Amino acid sequence: MGGDYGPEVVIAGAAIAQRYLPGVYFLFYGIEDLVEPILKKYPNLSTVSRFYATKTYTRMDEKPSQALRVGRGRSSMWHAIEAVKNGEADACISAGNTGALMAMSYFCLKMISGVERPGIAGVWPTLRGESVVLDIGATIGASAHQLVDFAVMGAGMFRALYCIKKPTIGLLNVGVEEVKGLDEIKKAGMILRKVQLDGLEYKGFVEGNDIGKGTADVVITEGFSGNIALKVAEGTAQQMSDILKNAMSSSILSRLGYFLSRDAFRKLKQKMDPNRVNGGVLLGLNGVVIKSHGSANASSFASAIGVGYEMVNNELLKRIIEDLRCFHEKRETFLNSEGEFVIDKEVI
Amino acid sequence: MGGDYGPEVVIAGAAIAQRYLPGVYFLFYGIEDLVEPILKKYPNLSTVSRFYATKTYTRMDEKPSQALRVGRGRSSMWHAIEAVKNGEADACISAGNTGALMAMSYFCLKMISGVERPGIAGVWPTLRGESVVLDIGATIGASAHQLVDFAVMGAGMFRALYCIKKPTIGLLNVGVEEVKGLDEIKKAGMILRKVQLDGLEYKGFVEGNDIGKGTADVVITEGFSGNIALKVAEGTAQQMSDILKNAMSSSILSRLGYFLSRDAFRKLKQKMDPNRVNGGVLLGLNGVVIKSHGSANASSFASAIGVGYEMVNNELLKRIIEDLRCFHEKRETFLNSEGEFVIDKEVI
Repeated sequence: MGGDYGPEVVIAGAAIAQRYLPGVYFLFYGIEDLVEPILKKYPNLSTVSRFYATKTYTRMDEKPSQALRVGRGRSSMWHAIEAVKNGEADACISAGNTGALMAMSYFCLKMISGVERPGIAGVWPTLRGESVVLDIGATIGASAHQLVDFAVMGAGMFRALYCIKKPTIGLLNVGVEEVKGLDEIKKAGMILRKVQLDGLEYKGFVEGNDIGKGTADVVITEGFSGNIALKVAEGTAQQMSDILKNAMSSSILSRLGYFLSRDAFRKLKQKMDPNRVNGGVLLGLNGVVIKSHGSANASSFASAIGVGYEMVNNELLKRIIEDLRCFHEKRETFLNSEGEFVIDKEVI
Repeated sequence: MGGDYGPEVVIAGAAIAQRYLPGVYFLFYGIEDLVEPILKKYPNLSTVSRFYATKTYTRMDEKPSQALRVGRGRSSMWHAIEAVKNGEADACISAGNTGALMAMSYFCLKMISGVERPGIAGVWPTLRGESVVLDIGATIGASAHQLVDFAVMGAGMFRALYCIKKPTIGLLNVGVEEVKGLDEIKKAGMILRKVQLDGLEYKGFVEGNDIGKGTADVVITEGFSGNIALKVAEGTAQQMSDILKNAMSSSILSRLGYFLSRDAFRKLKQKMDPNRVNGGVLLGLNGVVIKSHGSANASSFASAIGVGYEMVNNELLKRIIEDLRCFHEKRETFLNSEGEFVIDKEVI
């Protein structure tokens, strides 16, 4: 029901995904009067989907607390998440209110044991291919231990998406020297160096311009700067293509030039297209929940469904739970008698 | 002496600036053996410059505290800043170690009365023209009152650069709704709404993608996310032009297309060129100090000199000191008997 275009895009997206994802089955949750007429337009979907009418739905402008109070046990968003909890669905995909989706998922699915806070991980196009960046907006601020949990989960997600055994991890900072930046980031770096983990390779700090270069497979940050980074990259890409488009249509020669090099522009568009990599993965929860861009069109929403599909098929949750268990066990060996994490006599 | 290329670029940059900035006079500070041979290559400069040999210079990898300890009263950077303090120079321009430049400027020039921390302001190319963004990396974290000081100073800088009487101010946040984001940002927004100021118009929150759109003339953030934002924008612009360049040279047709539309690419390059807008302004200090990109080439360093020139010619410092005085006076009227800033019975 959410996002800029509501059920229209969700159902059209499912119809696209149906063609590419073998064996997928959809459970739709929403307001009957609004959803049924659209479903009728996609008769092929009826064999691989079921519709559940709900009493209400979560508005895009509701505060998380309000959405939870009003929607708990009643809204389409809640029911979709609950289906994951009850094992009726393998993944929940929503283009709705991010804060509400976070709050309801947190409340309904609960956190994986030992993890304090959820993060949203996104796939970021880079010069070398793609990187996973998290947290891109779930929670503001993060302690060193939370950042390290993000690193473990992000590495698990990267391994689930691509066949790489030991993805490289970078911590987003304002300089690459070990002495620079926020204390919690420096401490997270110390923990990652000390607690050697099998499923990832810690590379050190990376800067904002390293994300696009693909310097690290997985880039870790807290939700505030992660969200700023994501939006700035989107904005800059948009700005550049707008400038180029204007400049390209300013003379007949340049219009001809554009025509001849349209292939190059198609490549650029494909590479930087936010639709192609739509689908933020909520990590840290006992269940797979995918957040689609609110402005997603049908093919973009299909891509978010695809991300959920990959996550389920490659057993993301099992991997992450196992990796976190390993990490937390290893971490135990560094705790002092007061239960504090100590490196070189410093409490982290 | 600093930056990636040392005195070579600084002197060549001054030689360029000499042609465009009437009446400018340069004081060069550096190690004699390294600077003198380069100065000889630019005989025209000798009539408008003087060279001062210094005992040492600040290395790019020195920690600020170390740079201050070693360089105080001795390094070329210190002497250049001191020249501003003593009124021998109107502005100091350096491509050196940012942290050291901050620390020395802070120590030598001192803060403007009532301002707690310095910020670095940069000029950001946007679809509408140019915006001023600060802080792009001076200090990590900022209180609500510090953010509002940044807003006042950023507005002053914008007015000094462009003929606009009431620049619009946006606070960088993870959403535009008043309930979202960091507490200090929300509080800064409340203060800016409450204390109406003549020299700026507060627009509300802006998101990362709004910077490139030019939604606000001045975008305010603390140094960590500001630096991430700046670097991400640079990285994305670089990434896009790399992709396009590769795609453009992939076939004969697209190469021809590139040739025909090279004017459009020149426009894009001009618009997004970090060299064109090089020169971060250290705000909050009793003196004009400009930080050039370490990787600046000669024309880019000349642009940093140009920024300093504009700031001095348009009496940036006088404006900012006056604006801050006005703001702090107005703010006084909102203080309760305990000296706390109160809006709607809430202490900010």
